[in-house]
Amino acid sequence: MILYSYWRSTAAYRVRAALNLKGIKFDTRPVDLVKDGGMQHHPDYIKINPSELVPSLELDDGTVLTQSLAIMDYLDTIKPEPALLPSDPIARARALGVAHSVAMDIHPVNNLRVGQYLGKTFGADADAKRDWMVHWMEVGFRSIEPLLTSDTKFAFSDTPGLADICITTQCYNANRWGVDMMPFPKILNIEKNCLSLQAFIDATPEQQPDAVVS
Amino acid sequence: MILYSYWRSTAAYRVRAALNLKGIKFDTRPVDLVKDGGMQHHPDYIKINPSELVPSLELDDGTVLTQSLAIMDYLDTIKPEPALLPSDPIARARALGVAHSVAMDIHPVNNLRVGQYLGKTFGADADAKRDWMVHWMEVGFRSIEPLLTSDTKFAFSDTPGLADICITTQCYNANRWGVDMMPFPKILNIEKNCLSLQAFIDATPEQQPDAVVS
Repeated sequence: MILYSYWRSTAAYRVRAALNLKGIKFDTRPVDLVKDGGMQHHPDYIKINPSELVPSLELDDGTVLTQSLAIMDYLDTIKPEPALLPSDPIARARALGVAHSVAMDIHPVNNLRVGQYLGKTFGADADAKRDWMVHWMEVGFRSIEPLLTSDTKFAFSDTPGLADICITTQCYNANRWGVDMMPFPKILNIEKNCLSLQAFIDATPEQQPDAVVS
Repeated sequence: MILYSYWRSTAAYRVRAALNLKGIKFDTRPVDLVKDGGMQHHPDYIKINPSELVPSLELDDGTVLTQSLAIMDYLDTIKPEPALLPSDPIARARALGVAHSVAMDIHPVNNLRVGQYLGKTFGADADAKRDWMVHWMEVGFRSIEPLLTSDTKFAFSDTPGLADICITTQCYNANRWGVDMMPFPKILNIEKNCLSLQAFIDATPEQQPDAVVS
């Protein structure tokens, strides 16, 4: 499998963590979202992913899948263990709900292209863009924190799953943009426990072949 | 079941359509997102849904589920027929990918609270907010159109599913805000075919008990 990825994309980070948790080997094909206006807009990449976003997962037969959560659902289908979601319907819905709170209510509003459009349309400078991102992360984390279990290593149990992947990858952005995480002890606990696992360590932005670490 | 809903919320509209397609009876409990600054921010509703968003689905035992796509996944689990997603893993991933393109790349960026924040922070007036919404819908629809099948009644087959629900409900917003849909014939075809079904007709905003139709 080939993962079209960008080191700092938290959507790509999610899929890297899921692939690693399941022990599925993959090659990383970096897509530089910043260089020359963004290689995700290059005609060659648009053929792979018409949404001009990362990640994309190319299977061995050339089939390309897009959207990080759809890709992770696929991985759970073709390799059910370890499962990313619990099997009980209510527990599954709760875990998926938290994952979606991150993936739908926080991440898209803070996407790179939204920040770029804010700058172009409303003249938002770097500070205004940071304030924008911090605002939506704080709103989102405030809504997620009360939904989490308090006496487990991860969001709902002692095994990491989809909610933990979405939370931990979002924490990377939260740290990058300076969100005060003190009001979110359960989220912090999940991040700490995920980042103690090799599957997550190997998926972190800094460990990627295209990382630019200053 | 009780669905906490707002007539114009396309996320609530999705769940209404899914419940109707599956023939699951439910009571609608309107949450007025506009009145008095928004009833979704009322302490009584925050107890139900700490994200202060609709929809929420309250089950008969009082359990509350949030996030429209997590709720629809739950409905598919407890009442598998008619299925909202195909069973083949690749077909499932593609349908889920299109559903997520709407639910993650378009809808959250155009959420009511984002528009309100644009107004407060960047002084966006009604025209600027409409331009913002139209922009993200056009970007999203352009990325979805090439992924759809052209010789079927719905997105990928002659049976409506999750992708069709997400597309058709988003079309309601597109029509409301004046998106030129001519470049998206496959999306238009899906909308037309969905809106010919009673399950969708009964779920439309105008048919809701809290609809304000002028």
